[in-house]
Amino acid sequence: MELLEKLKWRYATKAMNGKKVSQDKIDNIIEAANLAPTSSGLQPFEIMVITNDEIKEQIKKVGWNQSVITECSHLFVFAAWDTYTAERINYMFDLTNEIRGFKNEGWENYRQQLLNSYPQKSAEENFQHASKQAYIAFTAALTAAAFQKVDATPMEGFDADKVDEILNLREKGLRSAVLLPIGYRDASEDWLVNLEKVRKPISKLVTEYK
Amino acid sequence: MELLEKLKWRYATKAMNGKKVSQDKIDNIIEAANLAPTSSGLQPFEIMVITNDEIKEQIKKVGWNQSVITECSHLFVFAAWDTYTAERINYMFDLTNEIRGFKNEGWENYRQQLLNSYPQKSAEENFQHASKQAYIAFTAALTAAAFQKVDATPMEGFDADKVDEILNLREKGLRSAVLLPIGYRDASEDWLVNLEKVRKPISKLVTEYK
Repeated sequence: MELLEKLKWRYATKAMNGKKVSQDKIDNIIEAANLAPTSSGLQPFEIMVITNDEIKEQIKKVGWNQSVITECSHLFVFAAWDTYTAERINYMFDLTNEIRGFKNEGWENYRQQLLNSYPQKSAEENFQHASKQAYIAFTAALTAAAFQKVDATPMEGFDADKVDEILNLREKGLRSAVLLPIGYRDASEDWLVNLEKVRKPISKLVTEYK
Repeated sequence: MELLEKLKWRYATKAMNGKKVSQDKIDNIIEAANLAPTSSGLQPFEIMVITNDEIKEQIKKVGWNQSVITECSHLFVFAAWDTYTAERINYMFDLTNEIRGFKNEGWENYRQQLLNSYPQKSAEENFQHASKQAYIAFTAALTAAAFQKVDATPMEGFDADKVDEILNLREKGLRSAVLLPIGYRDASEDWLVNLEKVRKPISKLVTEYK
């Protein structure tokens, strides 16, 4: 299966060469992220796409000084909703009715169910939930990069509060969840490029209940 | 790009026909999950693969009675580590040294860094972090299903504590994070199969920092 080949090809690139990724490839990566499934279809996140060198430099400083943050072509910041609000829930339900062209009682009941649960939970609990949805889109994005022979570096090592400040995410009701520098590997500088991929044996991963 | 076609084809299947998915397709789905990247490569989760009808029935009862839980061929339960321990961290670092055939000072320093941080954090914080890694593997799995024209239903609507009990997950140091029934759609019974996929416009998803 082609997907397995792509997943074997990709790796957490540790050095990039600054070469630009074309807009059509970036658009495909964004489309894959947008097509990813999310809980109740709420898509509780946004993606900040950063090509500005000064902003990349600022984020690198609060990102353990990892060189790919500035060497990449596009730095994707997946930012999850800081909480679920009635307005945000209603937007997606209204959009669904608009796109599908009808209202449905079961669907409207489900809207009420969500309106009666999410907004009553703590912002932190909601942010954690939203972050998991962002990780689904993030996975789709890094897979889409691999399908186009574009490298990407899944990255959790950064000061989230500082990134939020640099990008003014809190004012937008967002909090940074995970980073994905996207670009092209610099094989001559990357200590990881030629090392074997390490994964658990399947026997340690899977338990069957027959 | 083929990936986008597959992501458009898939949907959260609401009715399945009970037809069995072949073992080679299941193996590919598991391999995709195992190839998914995780934070520091720790793969902090396991996958319970359930074909036992009685266990499926029990889970359905604590899963909002959703019919796909019993109609599916294989029910995947992604279970995250309940916390990060020194033993678990050391296992993956030792495995890495074994597979790559050498010890590296930088890598050993990184091991110490993780040993000095994760085990000191609260179990809940660690479980939330591990769950996000499980979501990456979960996304790879549902994508691998779609590549093989196999349906899957991302599912968060279940009583996690009850599922943990049914599968004795806590005794294994695991907690259920997300479910993925895998099988084949029953188009005649599925209210969602013909409805249009709804996604935010890209303008609401992406902010560019140029």
